[in-house]
Amino acid sequence: MPSDEQKKRQVFMISDGTGITVSSLGNSLLTQFENIEFQKNIIPYIDSVDKAISIRDILNSHYNTTKEKALVFMTLLNPEINNIIKTANACIFDFMYTFLDPLEVELKTKSSDTIGKAHTVVDNPMYEQRIKAINFALNCDDGVQMSLYDAADIILIGVSRSGKTPSCLYMALQFGVFAANYPLTADDETHHFALPEILRSYKHKLFGLSIDPERLHHIRNERRPNSTYASLQQCRLEVNEVETLYKNEHIPFLNSTRYSIEEIVTKILSMAKIQRKIL
Amino acid sequence: MPSDEQKKRQVFMISDGTGITVSSLGNSLLTQFENIEFQKNIIPYIDSVDKAISIRDILNSHYNTTKEKALVFMTLLNPEINNIIKTANACIFDFMYTFLDPLEVELKTKSSDTIGKAHTVVDNPMYEQRIKAINFALNCDDGVQMSLYDAADIILIGVSRSGKTPSCLYMALQFGVFAANYPLTADDETHHFALPEILRSYKHKLFGLSIDPERLHHIRNERRPNSTYASLQQCRLEVNEVETLYKNEHIPFLNSTRYSIEEIVTKILSMAKIQRKIL
Repeated sequence: MPSDEQKKRQVFMISDGTGITVSSLGNSLLTQFENIEFQKNIIPYIDSVDKAISIRDILNSHYNTTKEKALVFMTLLNPEINNIIKTANACIFDFMYTFLDPLEVELKTKSSDTIGKAHTVVDNPMYEQRIKAINFALNCDDGVQMSLYDAADIILIGVSRSGKTPSCLYMALQFGVFAANYPLTADDETHHFALPEILRSYKHKLFGLSIDPERLHHIRNERRPNSTYASLQQCRLEVNEVETLYKNEHIPFLNSTRYSIEEIVTKILSMAKIQRKIL
Repeated sequence: MPSDEQKKRQVFMISDGTGITVSSLGNSLLTQFENIEFQKNIIPYIDSVDKAISIRDILNSHYNTTKEKALVFMTLLNPEINNIIKTANACIFDFMYTFLDPLEVELKTKSSDTIGKAHTVVDNPMYEQRIKAINFALNCDDGVQMSLYDAADIILIGVSRSGKTPSCLYMALQFGVFAANYPLTADDETHHFALPEILRSYKHKLFGLSIDPERLHHIRNERRPNSTYASLQQCRLEVNEVETLYKNEHIPFLNSTRYSIEEIVTKILSMAKIQRKIL
């Protein structure tokens, strides 16, 4: 362990599966302590007694060396594996049994303790929905394959680099939603933005993305440095035009500047009243 | 509420942000009770007192109608909002304060109670890493732009429809990993699979995907029904060839058949010893 990491508080996020659930809640909790530096270790697939013992040894050895208990967040369903980690000299937060035990009381039934069950979804119709949604997003990226728009749940529109593609991919992967996207550009003759005729028949499916011109300038400049395309003037012009278009056409829109992809997507689905297809 | 949903136990997953964390742990917990049918309601962005009151009213009205308490899973950081939901006549599981309170004791500091902080990452270098990784996956999908392979963290190989593209996109979105993919096909002359010369210089980055022939047949048949490409015979031949290639060339590989995208990706990263770039 490098010496600058010794000052950080060690956190082990231990899972019998992918580690996605434990790190999702673990990171939310740690973000609440912004004055403390954490060294995060995500440890997936602890699904055997041997692996559990080796993690317990690491935790004990950390305590013996530093005299400081590591924080442990864990989602371990197998009681034997769970109990091995619990005997470590560490500060344990059990994300599963903390709630499973009272849930068993409330639901008047025992839990099934099946390792990794939550994510084994291959036989689940939602798995196919998800793959189809990914293919749809790829096929309908950047204004291509508009013949498929009948099947779209939503069509994102916006200027180049305003976040359409990542948003569509995330909608597909996480929510199984069929999301297309179409780039808006100025009309060659009028130099103004107008809604393309082809989109009019899908107007109820349209959702606009906007972005602060300064942020757009930064993003475009990474792609094509010092181009007209990336200039702050051009970005201001396009954002102004596109927001005017959304307002005139009564198309709902979101300024994505301050948000992560997760936030952009969940806000859009909420505003557009689109149900997620994967629960 | 339709009558067939009345028999299901109502579950409300309530968040002040996207709802991703609360539904991730919530779904893991519910999966442990496979004999009970749940009606899941994911409710994001409960970030005001007014919204909290309206959810409390819904929960109380559900109890008054059915005499059964809804299950509530929640990640609500604002104490005022949190307390409003807690007064509802429901069975409350607080995913945040259950751990925040003891964490404050252990860390000898108060938490900052900042709503939605966990996901507001625009000013974070990880945000740009993520967008770059998505662009990389799109640019390097299906064997194109091999000139970019120097920048790849990993190059997935496999037969058509074995799950390369969704896996690369998920690696980019969730982990910020630069993942390319390259489709393997039979040599036109020998009719056998061989490792393309261009991939030899990146051999240390290669990771193979395999899949059960029956599953591949099913997936391909959805795409091109009754084609030679989709026939069980062809799928058996290709899978056999590709696995022989992986073994002869000592390329690590994974049979993806029984796994979700999350599992495939986390297993690959673990086997290939690639660190996630987003924590």
